[in-house]
Amino acid sequence: MNKLDVTEMIMERKRATGMTWAEISHAIGLSDVFTTSACLGMNSLPRDKADLLVTTLGLPQEAAVVLAEYPTKVFSQAVPTDPLIYRFYEIIGVYGQTLKELIQEKGGDGIMSAIDFDMSVEKVPYEKGDRIEIRMSGKFLPYNRW
Amino acid sequence: MNKLDVTEMIMERKRATGMTWAEISHAIGLSDVFTTSACLGMNSLPRDKADLLVTTLGLPQEAAVVLAEYPTKVFSQAVPTDPLIYRFYEIIGVYGQTLKELIQEKGGDGIMSAIDFDMSVEKVPYEKGDRIEIRMSGKFLPYNRW
Amino acid sequence: MNKLDVTEMIMERKRATGMTWAEISHAIGLSDVFTTSACLGMNSLPRDKADLLVTTLGLPQEAAVVLAEYPTKVFSQAVPTDPLIYRFYEIIGVYGQTLKELIQEKGGDGIMSAIDFDMSVEKVPYEKGDRIEIRMSGKFLPYNRW
Amino acid sequence: MNKLDVTEMIMERKRATGMTWAEISHAIGLSDVFTTSACLGMNSLPRDKADLLVTTLGLPQEAAVVLAEYPTKVFSQAVPTDPLIYRFYEIIGVYGQTLKELIQEKGGDGIMSAIDFDMSVEKVPYEKGDRIEIRMSGKFLPYNRW
Amino acid sequence: MNKLDVTEMIMERKRATGMTWAEISHAIGLSDVFTTSACLGMNSLPRDKADLLVTTLGLPQEAAVVLAEYPTKVFSQAVPTDPLIYRFYEIIGVYGQTLKELIQEKGGDGIMSAIDFDMSVEKVPYEKGDRIEIRMSGKFLPYNRW
Amino acid sequence: MNKLDVTEMIMERKRATGMTWAEISHAIGLSDVFTTSACLGMNSLPRDKADLLVTTLGLPQEAAVVLAEYPTKVFSQAVPTDPLIYRFYEIIGVYGQTLKELIQEKGGDGIMSAIDFDMSVEKVPYEKGDRIEIRMSGKFLPYNRW
Amino acid sequence: MNKLDVTEMIMERKRATGMTWAEISHAIGLSDVFTTSACLGMNSLPRDKADLLVTTLGLPQEAAVVLAEYPTKVFSQAVPTDPLIYRFYEIIGVYGQTLKELIQEKGGDGIMSAIDFDMSVEKVPYEKGDRIEIRMSGKFLPYNRW
Amino acid sequence: MNKLDVTEMIMERKRATGMTWAEISHAIGLSDVFTTSACLGMNSLPRDKADLLVTTLGLPQEAAVVLAEYPTKVFSQAVPTDPLIYRFYEIIGVYGQTLKELIQEKGGDGIMSAIDFDMSVEKVPYEKGDRIEIRMSGKFLPYNRW
Amino acid sequence: MNKLDVTEMIMERKRATGMTWAEISHAIGLSDVFTTSACLGMNSLPRDKADLLVTTLGLPQEAAVVLAEYPTKVFSQAVPTDPLIYRFYEIIGVYGQTLKELIQEKGGDGIMSAIDFDMSVEKVPYEKGDRIEIRMSGKFLPYNRW
Amino acid sequence: MNKLDVTEMIMERKRATGMTWAEISHAIGLSDVFTTSACLGMNSLPRDKADLLVTTLGLPQEAAVVLAEYPTKVFSQAVPTDPLIYRFYEIIGVYGQTLKELIQEKGGDGIMSAIDFDMSVEKVPYEKGDRIEIRMSGKFLPYNRW
Repeated sequence: MNKLDVTEMIMERKRATGMTWAEISHAIGLSDVFTTSACLGMNSLPRDKADLLVTTLGLPQEAAVVLAEYPTKVFSQAVPTDPLIYRFYEIIGVYGQTLKELIQEKGGDGIMSAIDFDMSVEKVPYEKGDRIEIRMSGKFLPYNRW
Repeated sequence: MNKLDVTEMIMERKRATGMTWAEISHAIGLSDVFTTSACLGMNSLPRDKADLLVTTLGLPQEAAVVLAEYPTKVFSQAVPTDPLIYRFYEIIGVYGQTLKELIQEKGGDGIMSAIDFDMSVEKVPYEKGDRIEIRMSGKFLPYNRW
Repeated sequence: MNKLDVTEMIMERKRATGMTWAEISHAIGLSDVFTTSACLGMNSLPRDKADLLVTTLGLPQEAAVVLAEYPTKVFSQAVPTDPLIYRFYEIIGVYGQTLKELIQEKGGDGIMSAIDFDMSVEKVPYEKGDRIEIRMSGKFLPYNRW
Repeated sequence: MNKLDVTEMIMERKRATGMTWAEISHAIGLSDVFTTSACLGMNSLPRDKADLLVTTLGLPQEAAVVLAEYPTKVFSQAVPTDPLIYRFYEIIGVYGQTLKELIQEKGGDGIMSAIDFDMSVEKVPYEKGDRIEIRMSGKFLPYNRW
Repeated sequence: MNKLDVTEMIMERKRATGMTWAEISHAIGLSDVFTTSACLGMNSLPRDKADLLVTTLGLPQEAAVVLAEYPTKVFSQAVPTDPLIYRFYEIIGVYGQTLKELIQEKGGDGIMSAIDFDMSVEKVPYEKGDRIEIRMSGKFLPYNRW
Repeated sequence: MNKLDVTEMIMERKRATGMTWAEISHAIGLSDVFTTSACLGMNSLPRDKADLLVTTLGLPQEAAVVLAEYPTKVFSQAVPTDPLIYRFYEIIGVYGQTLKELIQEKGGDGIMSAIDFDMSVEKVPYEKGDRIEIRMSGKFLPYNRW
Repeated sequence: MNKLDVTEMIMERKRATGMTWAEISHAIGLSDVFTTSACLGMNSLPRDKADLLVTTLGLPQEAAVVLAEYPTKVFSQAVPTDPLIYRFYEIIGVYGQTLKELIQEKGGDGIMSAIDFDMSVEKVPYEKGDRIEIRMSGKFLPYNRW
Repeated sequence: MNKLDVTEMIMERKRATGMTWAEISHAIGLSDVFTTSACLGMNSLPRDKADLLVTTLGLPQEAAVVLAEYPTKVFSQAVPTDPLIYRFYEIIGVYGQTLKELIQEKGGDGIMSAIDFDMSVEKVPYEKGDRIEIRMSGKFLPYNRW
Repeated sequence: MNKLDVTEMIMERKRATGMTWAEISHAIGLSDVFTTSACLGMNSLPRDKADLLVTTLGLPQEAAVVLAEYPTKVFSQAVPTDPLIYRFYEIIGVYGQTLKELIQEKGGDGIMSAIDFDMSVEKVPYEKGDRIEIRMSGKFLPYNRW
Repeated sequence: MNKLDVTEMIMERKRATGMTWAEISHAIGLSDVFTTSACLGMNSLPRDKADLLVTTLGLPQEAAVVLAEYPTKVFSQAVPTDPLIYRFYEIIGVYGQTLKELIQEKGGDGIMSAIDFDMSVEKVPYEKGDRIEIRMSGKFLPYNRW
């Protein structure tokens, strides 16, 4: 049993039970973004959360061991083709240098961590049409000089 | 004179005057993200804002015409190498499918627009170290079925 | 059962029954382009249409659930090799910058949506030989400035 | 003097005179799509049309020779990055196999020519927002069997 | 049963019977080049020829249906590695621009069709060693101007 | 002065004198295909032919030295984009394996040389429309076994 | 049964019997380089040698048919990653242009054949450490001019 | 002045004086392969040899400094296109795994060094046509286990 | 049974027994880096160490044969995507030219061997947070000049 | 004046003065690795160190401003070709997964920072030949779970 097997089991249980990611993540007491990423095999769960997930969705016990393992993160498409994901890729392409200018203006020579990092996603109603709002937060890491 | 020439002029004037992106954008009444992206040749300014920018930085008048033109957005690195920009690319690679699951759970089959879109960048102090906070907001566009 | 399984079932039933895409799409009351794309796993059907399709072609009931799921659109060939599809790729390569000039001359800085979008395909007889006529229609989206 | 030089001259004259592609193409009696593509170096003009263009925009006479030469069509980005152009690339990726199914259902084993081909672009007002409408027409070419 | 299955069956029957491509194509009354390409899944046979092929090689009847279907032509190696095939790729690389100059000198702005196309291959004895002679013939298609 | 410089000089003299490739190659007593390829920098001319070419077109004497040098053949586009050249690339993609089957059926395990090689291009009138006819001839080289 | 199956069988038999490539090739009376390449599916054996190999290693009789078939040579890694193989790739990268200069200085405009070709590999003891010695020999092929 | 400038100077002097690589390398007392590679910027000369080369060809004194510098070896074509160089690339593709089998059979787990390495190139007359003979010799390096 | 099979067996046994790489490598008397790389199929073990490993983990005896075979090292991602591995790739990208300058300043024209090579990895506690310390050691190999 | 200009100036002054990287870095009181990387445009110097460098090497004062700017780190070769740099790339390819296993065994799910990072390079004499020793140290960053 590996991460891919567990993801398939989760998707089947999710379809069968009709549970949403919101409900699943609420049940284990973690955010929806992190929970979903772990279910998709892109993050590891602490063992107690993995046990909770297994109970919540009725997965075999071995799945908890696998969910707690540290994944090798492989994204096979260097340029994603799904329109929803591509739009984010495009935003990085168009605004990447802008982000660099502004983050380094605010913090000096350094980067935003993608490891000490969290993110949220909301849908917010507006008169002119609903909007998706993404919030990312990562620790500022200054370059070491030695 | 093209977008690239104007960007170089802006960078030289910025260095010479010591103005920050925050000050430049404040002077023309637009956000720092949008203003920076336009100065880097990735967006077009409304003509009146372009005139203001030209006055603010002491650029030649022709630069305003160029700043108001619609750019062809070219990002030559399919996979960016600068560490600051790469981290965002990595976030899309790691969390892209998660974003798809959650946005479509909240809104149905559709995407977040990268055109009817805005973004902000802040540095926020925390006890355990400063954090960079990114906020993105894009209109939710449902897929048409016909 | 996933999108790929359902596409294979549809192609088998289509061959066995001799139904055309025109007939299939007529039976469920949607256009032939959209119906075909959904059968090929590139779009999702509303649940009632998915049920109709299942009845029309004699597919198992679970297929309707799958047809209504939101697909991750993956096109594995960055440059398509099939001659029919390549010709469209070539048209975008040759006329892409022309489309940009003309759409932005007519509408300002913005794009044509590929999401709020529809398309039709017809074969039209002419004296000098039949022609294929494609009509695409997408909402004009102006770039946001903030 | 080559195609690239002539395109740059045309863009400069277009900016200086304020003429639109609609006006330029009207002046030489060809469609806006074809005229623009020839001005961008992606098609050749008949010599008399090239002479007309030179007169219309006040270009040097040698430019007419160059405009009438047969271009080598090079598109350097296998996957275009400008959002407007990318959307068309995406449409081919998402609907390419659909186009193949429907064109071959209507005409048998064959393709739509990209050479004996014409195209138009319009902006059409709608209540829910303006739409861009593209019409492509290409000769149907059946595969030879010998 | 798909094109790939049928190709494998044909190769097995060909090995078992010892028939050559020359004999197979003679038996169904088509050229060896076209027949071979259809057997390899790169072209479709008219149904009556497909029936003849099935009889000739003793294939199951369903194979005739598959042979008559219109293939999606996929060539997975952008640059072929087999030495025999690479030499042709190299010829196009070395002489491609030469072909363009000469075809357009003879016919004006246009191309040679790869659809309304036929080809033959012969081995011809010469004193200094046998030679392979390839003859390609494709309809000249002038670019449309509109 | 290098191959590229000489090609540019030849193209300028060709445009100025109105000579065709047919006339140029006739003047130096070589085929149009080989002459054109040498003028485009893809082959070397024997020194006496180079001298003749220099006289024919009124090039500087040093050009003859350069034309006689052995070129490094570089084709920068792994997949050509010009439609005329792409069609030949497509033919190799579609018929490459077919060529392999037939050449090896006729000659055993071996290849057609692209070095001991010649080619001709003709435009031939037909009732249904002119055709381009390509003839390639290369020495058959059997694989050595040792 | 295909080339890949036969290679796997050979590797298993080789491991089981403890025979070396030197012994296997000696048994069939061909060089170790050619024999190994044929066993790895990159060359075809004459039928009598294939029969000898089958007897030597105790393979099923059908394997001789497969070993005598002409392989399609596919090398899936454009840039090899195994260090031993990469070093040769690197040598070609570093010394390729040097080889071109020297071979063409010695023989005129032409190439070394990779088809009428043989190679040997030896390990030779030296005081400062053993060396690997590769000897390649290929027919010089002058470019045809016509 | 950099390596590229010096290579161009050498090629010009070589053309002007008519000296061959054989003569140049003889004059400085190094092999033709190594001397040529250093002149092409792919290796560094000991300073005394660089001085000799400068004297031999009549180059400016600064060239000796540059010739003695350690080059960064860049080969821009991952897959070379020149036919002479490609044939060697093809040989590595076809025989790479064979070389691995045989070198490791003779020496154990290890590689042939491309650094402690030398090579020679000869043209050898044969009745059936001249042959090019390449000899490579590299130190055998066993993998360290620790 | 091949290297991949053995790696999977090892990972399963490792999970089942709870042994760490530190314990496994200690048991066979080799470093943790080398032992892990051999278990992952990237290096070969001496036969006696392979036997020890088989005993330690309770693997089938045949696994020892496989562990002692010389692997073909294939890394399928030219640019790794896992964040931990990517950071090392990034370090080579950012500091590669620096390493070249300093190694060659210290040793002359040459390289650090990746074959006569060893490496260690430690986690070291620091007040400001634990650090990972990597130590690499490779033999300096001077370029041969001949 | 940009980073590239300054690097070229530094290399010229370095060659003219004969100073080593060791001497230059000693003069400004930073390590040789960091100093070299900043001189090559891959890191930024604190302004006081930049002033010291300018004085040390006799550069124009403006160079100090440029040296203190934050570079966009671009490495154009995804796979480096210089043998010295490639060997490090190869080490990451061969040992990347091993590094992942061991770092995460020691520290849990996390990475080694390439930003809060330092490195040293030494040449160390050994009986069997000098060795290059690299030491890297980076902060361990655990993945955030939220």
